[in-house]
Amino acid sequence: MNILKNELLYEGKAKKIFRTDDDDILFVEYKDSATAFNGEKKAEIDGKGRLNNEISSLIFTRLHEKGIANHFVKRISETEQLIKKVTIIPLEVVVRNVVAGSMSKRLGIPEGTALKEPIIEFYYKDDSLGDPLITEDHIWILQAAEPDQVETIKSITRQVNEELQHIFAACDVRLIDFKLEFGLDANGQVLLADEISPDTCRLWDKETNEKLDKDVFRRNLGGLTDAYSEIFKRLGGM
Amino acid sequence: MNILKNELLYEGKAKKIFRTDDDDILFVEYKDSATAFNGEKKAEIDGKGRLNNEISSLIFTRLHEKGIANHFVKRISETEQLIKKVTIIPLEVVVRNVVAGSMSKRLGIPEGTALKEPIIEFYYKDDSLGDPLITEDHIWILQAAEPDQVETIKSITRQVNEELQHIFAACDVRLIDFKLEFGLDANGQVLLADEISPDTCRLWDKETNEKLDKDVFRRNLGGLTDAYSEIFKRLGGM
Repeated sequence: MNILKNELLYEGKAKKIFRTDDDDILFVEYKDSATAFNGEKKAEIDGKGRLNNEISSLIFTRLHEKGIANHFVKRISETEQLIKKVTIIPLEVVVRNVVAGSMSKRLGIPEGTALKEPIIEFYYKDDSLGDPLITEDHIWILQAAEPDQVETIKSITRQVNEELQHIFAACDVRLIDFKLEFGLDANGQVLLADEISPDTCRLWDKETNEKLDKDVFRRNLGGLTDAYSEIFKRLGGM
Repeated sequence: MNILKNELLYEGKAKKIFRTDDDDILFVEYKDSATAFNGEKKAEIDGKGRLNNEISSLIFTRLHEKGIANHFVKRISETEQLIKKVTIIPLEVVVRNVVAGSMSKRLGIPEGTALKEPIIEFYYKDDSLGDPLITEDHIWILQAAEPDQVETIKSITRQVNEELQHIFAACDVRLIDFKLEFGLDANGQVLLADEISPDTCRLWDKETNEKLDKDVFRRNLGGLTDAYSEIFKRLGGM
């Protein structure tokens, strides 16, 4: 596969997306930018783009191996990968195994409280509205997705949670929660998309509960690349 | 029935609750206090307590006649009523027929947009948390209600919406949205509780869309008692 990186199509907070010669394939470049609180907190962190690209490539490859279809095509370089072009569904799909972050604040439940069953929450992907929590009824009203697409999303999300729990448990990491995004491919099929990395997961050391994810940045808890490098190393990376 | 008003058990934002000689019956006194935005905006408005007590008595009586069991026992005076004692379930159950208020802000949908189907939302009744919107999964996690109680609540809520739509349509009022609360009686039965009034409903004139509810107070749109009196008059009150 000889894919050329053509013009920039879109620049987000953490990634740049480029057109390629193949209409169905996009070129992704991971940036070193870190943002939090809907863009209010920002920094450039050397090595973050590389770590997220490497970790996400590794995880999406393992999900492929487990039969979970996704948009990942191949790793190109330390900071670049190819993905299938999809139309992103404007939902942030959050899985929670343990209470943390916004759920702890919203419901007044202490961070670290384990849930009997994982739950799935939907947030409406809209920066101007602050990505609000929504109910399934709101999804229909917003026409963000069709009912059968939401059922597919929930089913894939549960599978991803099981696989990620295996992957992280095997390297002594607790998967607290994570955010997924989905897209529709050219055939209208729902496909797991975006990235899975310490930017999109809460990952705590199994023994010490040390945070090895973006909360290190959000809460000024130390070096972000140290935490992300630790995750990459435990997953078998360099 | 000869019921004595005994000691004050609880004073809320809009009502005082007194013990009676009957352990299963409480005495409610409606106050003239108006509050909004989780208590940030406050005022005393002469006649508000009377109007809410009269309107709520009238509506709960009609719901009884339609077979919808509820906590209302009888009107005692202009500002007082008797209710069955229930343990309040800490959920605010909101029905929306038309987008308005917090839903408009949350989802970025213009106020006044009619919904194809009514929707039910749950808010966790906790002032310190700001009564947050929650999903049904959150209800289980918070142990706010049992799954079968939530199904009963949704079923009663849909019936109440149908009856209220009839009641208000008959007097040229559009029922935009409203909030219900439920309690458990001594037998553990789910019972419609609290009040149904212009404090808890959005009511717009059918022709002019003039607001005849608490938004008049929230948004400084004129005289609250004029609006509430208009609703009481249209419902057949004085």
